[in-house]
Amino acid sequence: MALIVQKYGGTSVGSPERIKNVARRVAKFQAEGHQVVVVVSAMSGETNRLIELAREIQPHPDPRELDVVIATGEQVTIGLLAMALKQEGVRAKSYTGAQARILTDSAFTKARIVSIDEQKILTDLDNGNVVVVAGFQGVDENGSITTLGRGGSDTTGVAIAAALRADECQIYTDVDGVYTTDPRLVPEARRLKSITFEEMLELASQGSKVLQIRAVEFAGKYKVNLRVLSSFLDEPGEGTLITFKEDDKMEQAIISGIAFNRDEAKITVRGVPDKPGIAYQILGPVSEGNIDVDMIIQNVGVDDLTDFSFTVHRNEFTKAMDILRNQVQPHIGAREVIGDDKIAKVSVVGVGMRSHVGIASKMFRTLAEEGINIQMISTSEIKISVVIDEKYLELAVRVLHKAFGLEQEDA
Amino acid sequence: MALIVQKYGGTSVGSPERIKNVARRVAKFQAEGHQVVVVVSAMSGETNRLIELAREIQPHPDPRELDVVIATGEQVTIGLLAMALKQEGVRAKSYTGAQARILTDSAFTKARIVSIDEQKILTDLDNGNVVVVAGFQGVDENGSITTLGRGGSDTTGVAIAAALRADECQIYTDVDGVYTTDPRLVPEARRLKSITFEEMLELASQGSKVLQIRAVEFAGKYKVNLRVLSSFLDEPGEGTLITFKEDDKMEQAIISGIAFNRDEAKITVRGVPDKPGIAYQILGPVSEGNIDVDMIIQNVGVDDLTDFSFTVHRNEFTKAMDILRNQVQPHIGAREVIGDDKIAKVSVVGVGMRSHVGIASKMFRTLAEEGINIQMISTSEIKISVVIDEKYLELAVRVLHKAFGLEQEDA
Repeated sequence: MALIVQKYGGTSVGSPERIKNVARRVAKFQAEGHQVVVVVSAMSGETNRLIELAREIQPHPDPRELDVVIATGEQVTIGLLAMALKQEGVRAKSYTGAQARILTDSAFTKARIVSIDEQKILTDLDNGNVVVVAGFQGVDENGSITTLGRGGSDTTGVAIAAALRADECQIYTDVDGVYTTDPRLVPEARRLKSITFEEMLELASQGSKVLQIRAVEFAGKYKVNLRVLSSFLDEPGEGTLITFKEDDKMEQAIISGIAFNRDEAKITVRGVPDKPGIAYQILGPVSEGNIDVDMIIQNVGVDDLTDFSFTVHRNEFTKAMDILRNQVQPHIGAREVIGDDKIAKVSVVGVGMRSHVGIASKMFRTLAEEGINIQMISTSEIKISVVIDEKYLELAVRVLHKAFGLEQEDA
Repeated sequence: MALIVQKYGGTSVGSPERIKNVARRVAKFQAEGHQVVVVVSAMSGETNRLIELAREIQPHPDPRELDVVIATGEQVTIGLLAMALKQEGVRAKSYTGAQARILTDSAFTKARIVSIDEQKILTDLDNGNVVVVAGFQGVDENGSITTLGRGGSDTTGVAIAAALRADECQIYTDVDGVYTTDPRLVPEARRLKSITFEEMLELASQGSKVLQIRAVEFAGKYKVNLRVLSSFLDEPGEGTLITFKEDDKMEQAIISGIAFNRDEAKITVRGVPDKPGIAYQILGPVSEGNIDVDMIIQNVGVDDLTDFSFTVHRNEFTKAMDILRNQVQPHIGAREVIGDDKIAKVSVVGVGMRSHVGIASKMFRTLAEEGINIQMISTSEIKISVVIDEKYLELAVRVLHKAFGLEQEDA
């Protein structure tokens, strides 16, 4: 018998029929002898409907009151799912975030979980109940309702799993696991049986929509076993287990996957005086414009001048260029500011590359053989990212996937 | 400066535009120097939408979970109204039933209020806030969400007014007060400036939809001044004050109004053996069939036989007749069971009639002069009700309204 936390997103509970499907799956797990806590999101579309309603009242809704309004989305789902479970003959009990005592700070609309009172849930489980908890929401120490921000339901699932010391936190989603790369791009892409938290973090930060990066961080911190599964398959299979252990299997897998991202644009400031404080003088105004920066590269300077490059989200490219040309360039006396929003970022991710030299050179050689020019490079302990011309993205991902042998079964 | 509780029903908060109107009205009250607590219902249609959703999951929804689902209706409204108030520049704070610590018993979907923790609300008021509380809902001692049943929002308003010792509880509705009778029937019908609780109770029990009978009872018990006002008039005027005092004015008003009801049907069991226990033998099976009985009349018997009459809701007429003919009649050996669903009940209500003889005879004479036959009569301390043929209803109400001088201004 295991204690399992299952999290179902908005699409998985998007209609009464789907809620009944979830109930049947949960009932099956309980019948197999497991204790189950279910964390649910609002029915798909509901949160947006509530936000729209709030905006009709107040263009910039008061954060405390906005949370009061949008927290109702998950509250409806927990009630409906508990009913559906009872209809299946399963004992069930629902809890809002406040009722489960998911204590958060008071940062309305983007609160962080401080603690969870697990005692009530454990007692219910011991009495044979399936416990249904509203994701995405909590309560602050004044008793005000808070929400955790987008993707917060994943975080709730992980936090409850951590508090209950659950054997596993299962995230049901619309894909059946984490893949070596996007199967729409590379038909040979393969579902990974397991992956480490660090790799998952790198993949998530590269635009993988499978899991919210915050939930992955949380799971890593509290050593919660996370599993990604499909909620739409009758037999969800094993999905992908995200572990905090680099087990024997993992040691042998050098590269776990190829991530990519078409949402970025690159900007280069040319002929920058190579002196202390220059990075701040360039990025300070960008950051003040509320623009997030991803890759940042500065090479060794020549003749006291250097080039400074970074990437921003494509939606903010024009705004960032304006700031740099109008505020930064005249101020620091740079030669020119050039930009390109027709780029793509491709990353090779794998915890195994720590102890294997030659990954980078294999990556660069593979791309060179296809005539793909590398515009920028940045590396971390378990990731190598390159920026290339957008038109070569599919080709690059395909040849790298093959070069690193990712189509083969897990070793 | 007064402390006022205002309650707005579902129609009054039925759209973002209407919620903004309510906010403007509340802001005006506060600007006049009053402290205001607002109690709101769910936006019109919302509760029914949620119940339908629940029924799609479970034909007879689990009561605890149904309350979790439908309590979201009022929760959305409190958030939106608090936003609208802030948009008007008013400090405001919303509370769900649980947050306001409206403690109830655990009778889900029809809970009763046990106590309210007024301290938090009073502190907020003293800090210059308008406090917005969700009507219709509370929390039991286990922390489960409860609802008070239909019309519960009025009860919440009164209960909060009682707990805060408010100067007045104002119920905003779609009529501008309590009338001497239905103005659609009698154009001369006049709004009453004030009415006693006992009279209001009788009027409410006669089908007046202005106030829920439960809220009136509650107000009477805790001596809360209730006022009925229109939420759709720019200047709501004075409405009708429902007082627990029979003040000097009231002493002089013998009759306050004419109530009527077309929803009933009468049933007579003829030739019943006149012996102890017979009333129970007749009404027991009816009550077991979950049929409510209103008027009950048994006259003095002749030759050890008597006739037993009562009225039921017209929707349950057929069911009641079946029970009586198949279960009761053979069992007690009654001669026959006859029924009529083409009846109407007309009541003359007034606390003044206690000390005035002749009201009954004036009522009966007035009806007789119009050739209207009286089929049943029942009386209470402050009410005389008669059952007549349905086709004479309008005529009866009109002539009685005139006979008792109700078209004249309050004395």
